[in-house]
Amino acid sequence: MTTVKDIAKLANVSVATVSRVLNHTGRVGAETRARVEQIMDEVNFVPNQVARSLYQKKSNLIGVIIPDLENPFYGQIATSIEDELANNGYQVMLSVNTHDDINKYNQSITNFIQNNVNGIISSNFVLRTNLEIPLVLFDAEGTNNSPLRLSSNSRQGGKLAAKALIDGGAKNIVIQHGPLDLANSHARLDGALEVLEHSQCQYHLFEVTDFNYQTAIDQAPKLFDQYHDFDGIIAGNDIHAAALMAVARQRKLSIPKDFQIVGYDNSFISEITNPPLTSVSQSPSTIGKQAALLLLAALAGKTTAKEIINPVKLIKRSTTY
Amino acid sequence: MTTVKDIAKLANVSVATVSRVLNHTGRVGAETRARVEQIMDEVNFVPNQVARSLYQKKSNLIGVIIPDLENPFYGQIATSIEDELANNGYQVMLSVNTHDDINKYNQSITNFIQNNVNGIISSNFVLRTNLEIPLVLFDAEGTNNSPLRLSSNSRQGGKLAAKALIDGGAKNIVIQHGPLDLANSHARLDGALEVLEHSQCQYHLFEVTDFNYQTAIDQAPKLFDQYHDFDGIIAGNDIHAAALMAVARQRKLSIPKDFQIVGYDNSFISEITNPPLTSVSQSPSTIGKQAALLLLAALAGKTTAKEIINPVKLIKRSTTY
Repeated sequence: MTTVKDIAKLANVSVATVSRVLNHTGRVGAETRARVEQIMDEVNFVPNQVARSLYQKKSNLIGVIIPDLENPFYGQIATSIEDELANNGYQVMLSVNTHDDINKYNQSITNFIQNNVNGIISSNFVLRTNLEIPLVLFDAEGTNNSPLRLSSNSRQGGKLAAKALIDGGAKNIVIQHGPLDLANSHARLDGALEVLEHSQCQYHLFEVTDFNYQTAIDQAPKLFDQYHDFDGIIAGNDIHAAALMAVARQRKLSIPKDFQIVGYDNSFISEITNPPLTSVSQSPSTIGKQAALLLLAALAGKTTAKEIINPVKLIKRSTTY
Repeated sequence: MTTVKDIAKLANVSVATVSRVLNHTGRVGAETRARVEQIMDEVNFVPNQVARSLYQKKSNLIGVIIPDLENPFYGQIATSIEDELANNGYQVMLSVNTHDDINKYNQSITNFIQNNVNGIISSNFVLRTNLEIPLVLFDAEGTNNSPLRLSSNSRQGGKLAAKALIDGGAKNIVIQHGPLDLANSHARLDGALEVLEHSQCQYHLFEVTDFNYQTAIDQAPKLFDQYHDFDGIIAGNDIHAAALMAVARQRKLSIPKDFQIVGYDNSFISEITNPPLTSVSQSPSTIGKQAALLLLAALAGKTTAKEIINPVKLIKRSTTY
């Protein structure tokens, strides 16, 4: 590989001069600059990003933590983060499948720091160390885990889901909720309960340990074993809803006749279930893009603290009346 | 941040000595080593990976290219690659959504090289430059694009899909196939045609431009507009199959009564459609793990050329008789 040293030798200038040409810093005579650039062209010189990163303290690397890549919702977030960062000259260093394991999150942060990332985007977690680079958290409703954070209005999402079932005539609702130490699970449950407690409905709680497909198919039959007379389910997310609908089919239950069901995320899963799934929409592409833009603003020194709360809305399909 | 220089000063040794302690190279007295290590512990020293990468020519970074993160099939591959590499002390630098854009692939390779990755794992593409590091390609059936490559037996997959429909009594089959410059699309079509040409079936071809969800919902209605009397579809993948089933529902067609359909990939999509989708299984977790292990073997100097061809099998569910 051609190095800066080789270029300096070929151009008969010092290494420092080549550096100044590369980095557009300091004084370089026009003729010298032209000669150095011509030689770099001739030998097809690619500046080594690692060497530049030491010199400039700028690696152009961003660490990104995605909790579950098998969920298309997070796939869409990761995709739009990477798109936006690539458009701005940054590369992504990825860590995935942290799920809710706080040790995995913090281990990923250590790895990122060792690789000189310039900033980090992650789903919400509790950071154990001090960071000297900006950290943008998404899914970070109601937390103070970073001054730069995004969330959806989960409380409102919970309200919309409950209201959709009640409006469809449900009287006995099972709320499938995530772990309550997750701020957004908590907020969604609070929202649903606020609506249900002002209604004539009975309701029951069913906790799921996380939001991936394997958990969904493992836990779906248990909900049907535990509860029998329900006529509505608020599902943990679209994947859980799809798994519950698969069990309903096995048990010859008809949707929405025997029970109505509402998903969460409005990922493409909600369009391919049969019947198509009513779901609360958070826009994953918007979340990913906003997270990237917030980090870029922080890297440019334009912001040090900002919370973005996205609205949610109900997308009505055919699993509710 | 504490540097090697700071440690050297605190321990009253040279920078070279600290390097030798860190890298377990050269001679260092036991007492000196103990003193240096104690000081590193006391100041909570984290060796800078970038500095080590220059020193050791070993970044512990692997570049990974995933063509479409919104497809759970690739999400599962990415997940198992990252798992296996992390277990072996490597981090992943990710590039996504290259789809079939050869320029994007080659741009990603340039980015990886600039960041001193030690190796690359990618879905199949034609490399435009010489690489001095190992490259493992998956989805690389019938190509010679890298000496290290994985594929599934796509020809056999095409045969299994066609045979499933014929065994179920189909007489008029639409084959939805990917671009024929993709080796695995070509091989699958060849396999299906080999079976169909020895049968009494009529068949028609319907090309799709790629395998993501947006394309699937855009192109599904066109298949129904173009062909009317078919009683079987070999779908491009599970996502295309799900989109076709959604259109069938809108058009009041019943599956498998009005037509049978076979998917491809056996991702979790095939379990949540209604009825559940018969699909040709390639195991994405196995593919990801094998790709990582092959790269690790190459990095350890244990192999320079190896092709792994995975078997496929038909998973029969309820969209075929």
